[in-house]
Amino acid sequence: MTLNQQSSELFRQVQAEIIASLEAIDGKATFSTDQWERPDKKGSHGGGGTTRILRDGAVFEQAGVSFSEVHGTLPKEMASLMSNLPQDAQFYACGVSLVIHPHSPMIPTTHANFRYLEVDKRSWFGGGMDLTPYYLFAEDASHFHQQIKLSCDRFGSSLYPKFKADCDAYFYLPHRDETRGIGGIFYDYLGKEDPMNLNSYFSFSKDISRTFIPAYLPIVEKRIKENWTEEQKHFQLIRRGRYVEFNLLYDRGTLFGLRTQGRTESILMSLPPQVKWEYCFEPEEGSKEAELIDTLKNPREWV
Amino acid sequence: MTLNQQSSELFRQVQAEIIASLEAIDGKATFSTDQWERPDKKGSHGGGGTTRILRDGAVFEQAGVSFSEVHGTLPKEMASLMSNLPQDAQFYACGVSLVIHPHSPMIPTTHANFRYLEVDKRSWFGGGMDLTPYYLFAEDASHFHQQIKLSCDRFGSSLYPKFKADCDAYFYLPHRDETRGIGGIFYDYLGKEDPMNLNSYFSFSKDISRTFIPAYLPIVEKRIKENWTEEQKHFQLIRRGRYVEFNLLYDRGTLFGLRTQGRTESILMSLPPQVKWEYCFEPEEGSKEAELIDTLKNPREWV
Repeated sequence: MTLNQQSSELFRQVQAEIIASLEAIDGKATFSTDQWERPDKKGSHGGGGTTRILRDGAVFEQAGVSFSEVHGTLPKEMASLMSNLPQDAQFYACGVSLVIHPHSPMIPTTHANFRYLEVDKRSWFGGGMDLTPYYLFAEDASHFHQQIKLSCDRFGSSLYPKFKADCDAYFYLPHRDETRGIGGIFYDYLGKEDPMNLNSYFSFSKDISRTFIPAYLPIVEKRIKENWTEEQKHFQLIRRGRYVEFNLLYDRGTLFGLRTQGRTESILMSLPPQVKWEYCFEPEEGSKEAELIDTLKNPREWV
Repeated sequence: MTLNQQSSELFRQVQAEIIASLEAIDGKATFSTDQWERPDKKGSHGGGGTTRILRDGAVFEQAGVSFSEVHGTLPKEMASLMSNLPQDAQFYACGVSLVIHPHSPMIPTTHANFRYLEVDKRSWFGGGMDLTPYYLFAEDASHFHQQIKLSCDRFGSSLYPKFKADCDAYFYLPHRDETRGIGGIFYDYLGKEDPMNLNSYFSFSKDISRTFIPAYLPIVEKRIKENWTEEQKHFQLIRRGRYVEFNLLYDRGTLFGLRTQGRTESILMSLPPQVKWEYCFEPEEGSKEAELIDTLKNPREWV
């Protein structure tokens, strides 16, 4: 099998496994399935995807897990980011992408994306996963990072520190001077300058994408039992507003997807089902809410 | 008085008049007052503003009416948009800006902005106002546009058609292929290439900014009595999501303000207090909701 076939198969499996785990833990709602096709520039077939959404579950207010495999003539917006491309360069991309918004403010929101790209003669892997808690349980943050680090360390001890720092730098809202959440990892262009090792990067992608379930699900299981109040739900809805701000103002995937006429509903499935904004919202000094914001302003080491 | 003094005085008065009318019609809540200062690049005083917010009124879920008057060294992001500027060019800007989100989905959201700028040796006026209904009453849309047209026509019959078309073009979401609302007017750079007539453009700014109250308030008064259902409120919250998408993805004022370290809370007071997103939301064919979306996809002439 070629690397794009292997990657496509891997990411389809990852989508199926994550959906099965989320449905099992939710116990009430199941995922709907939307299959869509993408017309290429010249009207020819350009691939497509399967967007799967769960809404109004027992645990999850909304969860979206999308797989896509697209190809064709490279969109101009992407071509302009790379040099020395032939006219009408061809591309191929496949990946799985997810965003989970639980009902309970005690369970963190999470996002993950794992992808493989080919442009002209280059190939590479990118992706990551990160956690956005509303109420901070240090042991949950440590567990999430620990699982990621274990996976990274199998491929070299330098990976986790670099990708963790890149994650904090990427998920940053300059107008709020805070990170979106407590991070995780973010990596891109693995193998682009190092084509001899693409198989190793595939192995890393496989390992890290399979780490999502053991990194996130135990946190959900643990925090399902926590009680929460209307005030805490309110805080979650306000914080979700910051999530929207990041995704619409800064997220490269979102902006690029919309600019290149990607499927709007699949791109914006990341936005939370309910959100609030409140002018000059400030949590009380010394509160749990203030502690969270302090952590977002001063990213920590979790392992 | 210089033109900047006249403009600053005008926009302060417009802010006060609009606030008085909104408080009168709301009858329950009043506007809070936040005065803020802006440090200039070199740490010197760079002006400031007064942000006034009403929340949880009888009629208005949130209304923000902000005045600002800022000056100093032109931010790089703005300098890059203009040619032939000296190093460290100075600027001055004053304006009033408002966004009103009523509780009732039968009362439209509205936005208006009126401003005066000086950069190096150039001066100009910009601004506009536009209406975002959730349920379309053609007579309200016509009233709003008619009032605007009356004001424009006092300065020349070519103004309204041009500024109306510019408004439809500006408040457009390409990823949804729809306008944000049913428009109004949008104008910019009035007097920039025509400094001899700046006093006429000031008169136009004065007339059009004073038109906001007779254009919007009668619609509020008329629609206060309409009943609405939870389903209609739900539709309003979904449509407010599109409002957020426009403001964070495309609105030049918002993006420019955030990039130049403007006061975040005053810039984002435009975002609605409560919002929903729903994957692949589609109103029923032939419904009032579908009629609205059809109108947003095919901007109409209202007078």
